[in-house]
Amino acid sequence: VHPCGPDSLLASIEAAKRGLIEPVLVGPAGKILRAAEVAGLDLSDYRIVPTEHSHAAAEKAVAMARTGEVEALMKGSLHTDELMGAIVPSATGLRTGRRVSHAFVLDVPTYVKPLIVTDAAINIFPGLKEKVDIVQNAIDLVHALGPEEPRVAILSAVETVNPDIPSTLDAAALCKMADRGQITGGILDGPLAFDNAISEAAAKTKGIDSPVAGKADILLVPDLESGNMLATQLQYLAGADTAGIVLGTRVPIVLTSRADTVRGRLASIAVMALVAHGKRQGAGTTSREGRP
Amino acid sequence: VHPCGPDSLLASIEAAKRGLIEPVLVGPAGKILRAAEVAGLDLSDYRIVPTEHSHAAAEKAVAMARTGEVEALMKGSLHTDELMGAIVPSATGLRTGRRVSHAFVLDVPTYVKPLIVTDAAINIFPGLKEKVDIVQNAIDLVHALGPEEPRVAILSAVETVNPDIPSTLDAAALCKMADRGQITGGILDGPLAFDNAISEAAAKTKGIDSPVAGKADILLVPDLESGNMLATQLQYLAGADTAGIVLGTRVPIVLTSRADTVRGRLASIAVMALVAHGKRQGAGTTSREGRP
Repeated sequence: VHPCGPDSLLASIEAAKRGLIEPVLVGPAGKILRAAEVAGLDLSDYRIVPTEHSHAAAEKAVAMARTGEVEALMKGSLHTDELMGAIVPSATGLRTGRRVSHAFVLDVPTYVKPLIVTDAAINIFPGLKEKVDIVQNAIDLVHALGPEEPRVAILSAVETVNPDIPSTLDAAALCKMADRGQITGGILDGPLAFDNAISEAAAKTKGIDSPVAGKADILLVPDLESGNMLATQLQYLAGADTAGIVLGTRVPIVLTSRADTVRGRLASIAVMALVAHGKRQGAGTTSREGRP
Repeated sequence: VHPCGPDSLLASIEAAKRGLIEPVLVGPAGKILRAAEVAGLDLSDYRIVPTEHSHAAAEKAVAMARTGEVEALMKGSLHTDELMGAIVPSATGLRTGRRVSHAFVLDVPTYVKPLIVTDAAINIFPGLKEKVDIVQNAIDLVHALGPEEPRVAILSAVETVNPDIPSTLDAAALCKMADRGQITGGILDGPLAFDNAISEAAAKTKGIDSPVAGKADILLVPDLESGNMLATQLQYLAGADTAGIVLGTRVPIVLTSRADTVRGRLASIAVMALVAHGKRQGAGTTSREGRP
């Protein structure tokens, strides 16, 4: 959507060359071609859908996603709010019955497997109802990425239930909802402190008997502030490669930021392609009853 | 305490004859002896601790319980508030770190085992913190009655977690607290509707996979109103024999009501004696860390 900067164009063409996606470039044709020239790219193999300005590009791309003409969206050089503004309206956008949420997929060198952190980008102070959708979106994401049943750690500052710390109460409620089939496809435990979630030794020291402690695939953070600090720290100080994806919409959406490297953009595109493929297979996120 | 009516005197002397208790009759000696005459009882084998009026009887009895001179209290013909007024003050009464709570022990002809309903008499609208103590008090009670690890059903109107129904959230929190060792000695599940709690068939129909459903020993009710209706219904329409006991105090306390039969009073005394015996064995309710 509006790939009028060399970086966003580079990543999508690179992804196309690697067979990850078939790009459809939606935006002002002149600007897109100029960006290609700057980046030294030949666009003759790719479809351009011309629109006037970035606002029109967002509307057109969302309309194409609604009809199934495209199966995922990737933000180019336009403001996030401009793209989300076209996605969010329930009559014309891409919302489903689910809350829209964001997930970071992190490859942390010091952890044995990919780690998903959610929601560190869209939902600021989610309540229990929102957390149900955020967790289910993330579980469905893991199912799109591989065959495993994900282990979900619901993070708080402590691993015990404390009536004065709402995130510990939400954690307990989410676990019981999983017991009752109100959340499906994952193994949940929480509250867990960060150390208990990712280190079996730390969990053992605390005497926590949990199928998730030390083996978490998904970290559900209490709110955006804590989540953002956690994800950014993993990226900058623990050397994690980071992909990001918007979930709970009719099609997966990649919201790149200008700070992203081409490697990071490619990782996000790969995740996006897997989610779109999963939706095509009917294992998608539109129905909570969809999963066996 | 103040056994100046024939009914209360009859029950305690009958319990003494059966070897359940050694009664100490605290109150105005003249009134006690007159009540004995009316009931046709000979009190010459029993100790009377004379006091002036009912208020003084309550204070004296509580003081004797504090020093260990008596190991349980049973309300005679004085008002509940008068006895509780002597029990509740933290400096001179019988409170522990625990919330004081009440449990009915019911022998329901149509249920396979004794059923405990708590709290249907003292705590009106308990919050999560209070429910923790109410559950732990009831679990400790079951341990005093027998060797089994009790199964605790946390009741609500529904068996799923509903963010709009606080009792379902409390239930989830209590279950997680049991997972984390914040509540010990019992197997908890909830929210459960009443039918799921006491009928395995009903639980199966709803697809509930629970170690408690259909096998509950303890029913934790959401509040006093629902609990009172439940307990009274079991007593009057399902033909249950009913004992009642106050827990979370230094010694167990029986609060009989004028409507109680001698049979009911004896049942309460039997439960009281078992709890007092348990406390003597060090498996009591004063320390949450006391149980292995």
